[in-house]
Amino acid sequence: MTNETVEPEITAAGNEVSASFLAAKKRSDETMAALEANPGKFTMLTGDRPTGRLHLGHYFGSIRERVAMQERGVNTNIIIADYQVITDRDTTEHIDDNVLNLVLDYMAAGIDPTKTMIFTHSAVPAENQLMLPFLSLVTEAELHRNPTVKSEMEASGHALTGLLLTYPVHQACDILFCKANVVPIGKDNLPHVEITRTIARRFNERYAKKHPVFPEPAAILSEAPEIPGLDGRKMSKSYGNSIMLGATAEETAKLIKKSPTDSERRITFDPINRPQVSALLTTAGLVTGRDPQEIAEEIDDAGAGALKKYVTESVNEFLAPHRERRVELAKDMDAIRDILHDGNKRANAIAEETLDEVRAAMGMKY
Amino acid sequence: MTNETVEPEITAAGNEVSASFLAAKKRSDETMAALEANPGKFTMLTGDRPTGRLHLGHYFGSIRERVAMQERGVNTNIIIADYQVITDRDTTEHIDDNVLNLVLDYMAAGIDPTKTMIFTHSAVPAENQLMLPFLSLVTEAELHRNPTVKSEMEASGHALTGLLLTYPVHQACDILFCKANVVPIGKDNLPHVEITRTIARRFNERYAKKHPVFPEPAAILSEAPEIPGLDGRKMSKSYGNSIMLGATAEETAKLIKKSPTDSERRITFDPINRPQVSALLTTAGLVTGRDPQEIAEEIDDAGAGALKKYVTESVNEFLAPHRERRVELAKDMDAIRDILHDGNKRANAIAEETLDEVRAAMGMKY
Repeated sequence: MTNETVEPEITAAGNEVSASFLAAKKRSDETMAALEANPGKFTMLTGDRPTGRLHLGHYFGSIRERVAMQERGVNTNIIIADYQVITDRDTTEHIDDNVLNLVLDYMAAGIDPTKTMIFTHSAVPAENQLMLPFLSLVTEAELHRNPTVKSEMEASGHALTGLLLTYPVHQACDILFCKANVVPIGKDNLPHVEITRTIARRFNERYAKKHPVFPEPAAILSEAPEIPGLDGRKMSKSYGNSIMLGATAEETAKLIKKSPTDSERRITFDPINRPQVSALLTTAGLVTGRDPQEIAEEIDDAGAGALKKYVTESVNEFLAPHRERRVELAKDMDAIRDILHDGNKRANAIAEETLDEVRAAMGMKY
Repeated sequence: MTNETVEPEITAAGNEVSASFLAAKKRSDETMAALEANPGKFTMLTGDRPTGRLHLGHYFGSIRERVAMQERGVNTNIIIADYQVITDRDTTEHIDDNVLNLVLDYMAAGIDPTKTMIFTHSAVPAENQLMLPFLSLVTEAELHRNPTVKSEMEASGHALTGLLLTYPVHQACDILFCKANVVPIGKDNLPHVEITRTIARRFNERYAKKHPVFPEPAAILSEAPEIPGLDGRKMSKSYGNSIMLGATAEETAKLIKKSPTDSERRITFDPINRPQVSALLTTAGLVTGRDPQEIAEEIDDAGAGALKKYVTESVNEFLAPHRERRVELAKDMDAIRDILHDGNKRANAIAEETLDEVRAAMGMKY
């Protein structure tokens, strides 16, 4: 549900796919068809972990789709999952800067705060309180079985904190407090949506048989291609291989210029044997909507210099309107803060209403 | 910190005591001395899990001490830990009734709501939100090492839920949101206070080095003797062997009458070989302030009938003022609810202030 900004993406172990993945894919396709037919009946929750800035991978992987959902008329909600920053690190350094820059990028990309609620979960106590009843609905064994939590712990090189172990339950709070019934995700996050569905089902069965409080949200599996970093490896802050949406044209040109290629002059699209050259071609293909193969043939013997020139120009051209809007918006950071405050206020009203229903269902109104 | 009402008490494995227990005992004695010298500098948090009614064991084990603390001038807070009900069970049946009856018993016992804040944690979202940052400060391994959680899981016969695993962290929220610096407990709950101290220390070190947000609370180890049920076993709802504070004199007489004794006519105090007769003597000793041995010698050959008569009369006499006040208070349950609402309101104001400090320390105010 939430993107890891800048940090490397985690891939689920291949053996976790199979039957349950196919069932999820089928449900995703059916949900998408229903959503296209009747968008007003759907509430979507998606978001980002504010650990850095958004890059081109985020744009094609999710931001673009969020804008499309908003424009379809889906009730769209974007969570900035600020407590997720501390699942696997001991600091919240730069978090305020990261949060405000996310809001800037959302808006520059076309998110309209009058249509989409943008909020940070740390500002919504009634949402966070759902952790308590929800934690009672899952066993410790179920928490441990989550393959994504395991891979994330391994990737972080950090001890498994209580928060990393339980954050899928906190994601259930994020999703269910606003009664989202659709959650767009990459397949690695399927276990999280599954646990949310389990929690919703168990809560309703245990405490709200007659009048279910929560929907069982469906995952919409992202169809977006995986976008490599400029050097062919995964996009990662530590590799310095990602094109930030908010970077300047000059910074982008510099980054592309220093990205490694290989010794073969002729440009060909061959992701397996020529990952670096192919990553540049993929990037150009995405931003121009062209086939990377065709771009390769066009450049041919002109070599890496010509390829980089083409990538730089096409990326900068593609991002120019986003960057222009971003610069304009950044002139009034108070207005950006106001958008967040307004989103938080709306999220609090929704969360308090849901928590009230939860207390009533559990007989905890004294 | 919180009593398990009615349900059996859990005893820590003997090997958990030793050095760390002795250190805790020393700190407890020092804290108690400091508290007696300067009660106004201390904030106490204690409470109960609303799984049933309070009995004589609770009275002598903790309620009496809470009243004494209140009268000393300590800033006393009593939490009704309603989310703890679902750590090891799948229902909140009768929870409203249990909660209101706790308030009744507190007040009948001498708790003064103008001096002591009485509240349910489910009514305090900003307190519960502390779960998120606090869960990030402990590792899953530390959660698993807690011997009390293990014993409680075994005693409950229920799978280890996410909430049972993490409830010591929730207790840290209960204690730290109001910045309690003293927590009266039985020795089985020492691991919980230890985890609270760890959380307070780590939060301060990580996020609030210059201006620590949280105190490291000290446990005050209860000196109260363990009170057996009427049949010599542990007091337990399922055994029906506990004298409820709120029962009538008739119900109490009936309960004592049907409590088992042994075939020996002469009454002697011998807890090892005659647990049932000795439990009756212990009970009478507590409520009269007399030595059980002396009571045994007085009754001597008059037998179990005379002993039960003496126990019934002395228990009912001891509880008469409590019960009278309780009956009087129960005539206006709206007033009881108002007391709880007022406590909840005060707890919310304190929790919101603390959460604000936590957000500021973590740089999460945008």
